[in-house]
Amino acid sequence: MRHANEVVSAYWAAANDREWGVFGDLLADDVVYEGPQTRERVRGRANYVRFNVEGFPGDWRLAVIRIIGEGLHASSWIEFTNADGTIQPGLCFFDLRADGKIVRITDFWPDPYELPAGRAHLVERY
Amino acid sequence: MRHANEVVSAYWAAANDREWGVFGDLLADDVVYEGPQTRERVRGRANYVRFNVEGFPGDWRLAVIRIIGEGLHASSWIEFTNADGTIQPGLCFFDLRADGKIVRITDFWPDPYELPAGRAHLVERY
Repeated sequence: MRHANEVVSAYWAAANDREWGVFGDLLADDVVYEGPQTRERVRGRANYVRFNVEGFPGDWRLAVIRIIGEGLHASSWIEFTNADGTIQPGLCFFDLRADGKIVRITDFWPDPYELPAGRAHLVERY
Repeated sequence: MRHANEVVSAYWAAANDREWGVFGDLLADDVVYEGPQTRERVRGRANYVRFNVEGFPGDWRLAVIRIIGEGLHASSWIEFTNADGTIQPGLCFFDLRADGKIVRITDFWPDPYELPAGRAHLVERY
């Protein structure tokens, strides 16, 4: 099987290129996607491909900052650029089956927030 | 050197146990911590230990959900339980030096947000 890092690299390349056939081939039939921040879930390859195609229309693109793979687990940190040019970091954790197919994806989109006053004296800003 | 996964496992165990000497020994002298959501940065081992001790007082605890290590990179997904019992996911990306010391930490704390209406028909809620 391919290393988890290669599988996730192929996943993001296919998404960025809108190669949805290639993208779907990386997924297990029974893949489960979860977004804990909204508590949204998608079950199954066909539903998950549709979620990506229809749920995120427009001229976005993404750049991989880091992919880390170990055994049947991987993580990624990407920068997602919306059609309006705004950039958002995206963080995903992946579980793979023994055959290398992606069977679980947990997806996080952290937004900016105000620095808490209690630690402001301990940091610099950038 | 220790595998990146072991180093990050030791990092979170030391933090949870308030073993700040052990924690500091895992860090490079010139470690840099960044929180992109607030654009906060801490430079150097002593400052970063102090940031953890003074910046996060109270009776919090953490549980590791996933640690992934590959070469000189690692990531972690933890659940941070505040003194009031509220639970927050925390996601970190780590870079290690060749000697296994942690030299860079990028830290994300994703908050809940409203499910966008445009993809509500494509998901279930949990």
